[in-house]
Amino acid sequence: MTELNTSHGKPRAVVLFSGGLDSTTLLALALHDGYEVYALSFRYGQRHAWELKAAETIARQMGVAGRRVFEIDLRAFGGSALTDNIPVPKGRDASTMTREIPVTYVPARNTVFLALALAWAETLSASDIFIGVNALDYSGYPDCRPEFIEAFQHMADLATRAGVEGRQKLQIHTPLIHLHKSEIIRKGMDLGVDYSKTVSCYDPVPEGLACGECDACVLRLQGFAENGMRDPAPYVSRQKVEGSNQ
Amino acid sequence: MTELNTSHGKPRAVVLFSGGLDSTTLLALALHDGYEVYALSFRYGQRHAWELKAAETIARQMGVAGRRVFEIDLRAFGGSALTDNIPVPKGRDASTMTREIPVTYVPARNTVFLALALAWAETLSASDIFIGVNALDYSGYPDCRPEFIEAFQHMADLATRAGVEGRQKLQIHTPLIHLHKSEIIRKGMDLGVDYSKTVSCYDPVPEGLACGECDACVLRLQGFAENGMRDPAPYVSRQKVEGSNQ
Repeated sequence: MTELNTSHGKPRAVVLFSGGLDSTTLLALALHDGYEVYALSFRYGQRHAWELKAAETIARQMGVAGRRVFEIDLRAFGGSALTDNIPVPKGRDASTMTREIPVTYVPARNTVFLALALAWAETLSASDIFIGVNALDYSGYPDCRPEFIEAFQHMADLATRAGVEGRQKLQIHTPLIHLHKSEIIRKGMDLGVDYSKTVSCYDPVPEGLACGECDACVLRLQGFAENGMRDPAPYVSRQKVEGSNQ
Repeated sequence: MTELNTSHGKPRAVVLFSGGLDSTTLLALALHDGYEVYALSFRYGQRHAWELKAAETIARQMGVAGRRVFEIDLRAFGGSALTDNIPVPKGRDASTMTREIPVTYVPARNTVFLALALAWAETLSASDIFIGVNALDYSGYPDCRPEFIEAFQHMADLATRAGVEGRQKLQIHTPLIHLHKSEIIRKGMDLGVDYSKTVSCYDPVPEGLACGECDACVLRLQGFAENGMRDPAPYVSRQKVEGSNQ
């Protein structure tokens, strides 16, 4: 670690942070590991801005060193239910949703997000990037797989000043990649994460309540249920996982 | 080539197109090679918008199938003379300017641009991406080197639906990478490129005239001079290369 990468003795890390369950756990992990954290969120034309509101609240509460909301309108290219008017699938079973690339896949999204994290990291002289990709629950997304991250790491080694000048290379961390949702939640609980303000839903109602029926809600509710817990976030409906006993 | 990638029998290509000398030659090459061309330009917080004006005029003249100017404010991260208030170096000799990473390097710029080209290509079902990087004249930029492009290609193979589903992978083309500026110009002249409207200058005067003294101008003027030609683009000054005989 060079002096350039430290502030008060801490290494700097850019953390890709959406305000969802996974990236909030990720942020807690990076802080726990002793990094000076710079949280990077994107306004990328997603259908709703609730997760950005959540990201702002959570980042402030958890004590990041810096924060950016980067504007990048991926709707300009189209092709996803998360940015276009394609309906978000509802009521699917967790066991069937991971076999194919879902309509919620945004073309090359993680490539774009990691590229921008790399740009900010290089400017900050940060030594590390954290991204909360997961290869189990979202195995249908090509850009959540370990082989994609490895390839991006290799590319990043060659893309930057640090790589060329033989200085310390940027390290990309994916601490959640091989964890089930229930394990991610347990890790977060151990670190004292407050999940009540996190937003994972692909399609919340206008008041910001999670729908309880899209893939993201189903996986999340199931993750809490497997830990014998109740998801503290506000929902319109939790029918699929919790039945009518709520 | 699958039917998906063709329109009127032509394969589709996304061409990264700034309106400069290199990318205008690139566009001519892609059209000559029979591609249906989609030109992608960026408003990335560059100090001037003259090259975007040039890009619009040239793309219309050359007959592209589609065009996008993507807004992405890389100034949010800072760190370059091309986007910040750092002075652009002037009057440097072509032989000395390629040994180090210049202040005009924008952190991770080509990584970001290629990532966005990948996103658009995936949405368009395009089979090819063209980028006008050059490893000779701009060897100081880490993200213009062949090893960077190879690493990006490998990453792209894993990042997209096509890669995962075993369909045809996107091919990244860099036809200018090993050419000297004079060779690029000769190739463009053979293809009938009109260089009078191309803008390469890092720091044009307010009326849009090229300065004639920044690295980009010096390399370009020298490239024409080596072909025994006069650069048809408008300049304020051509002193460094052409001396006082203009």
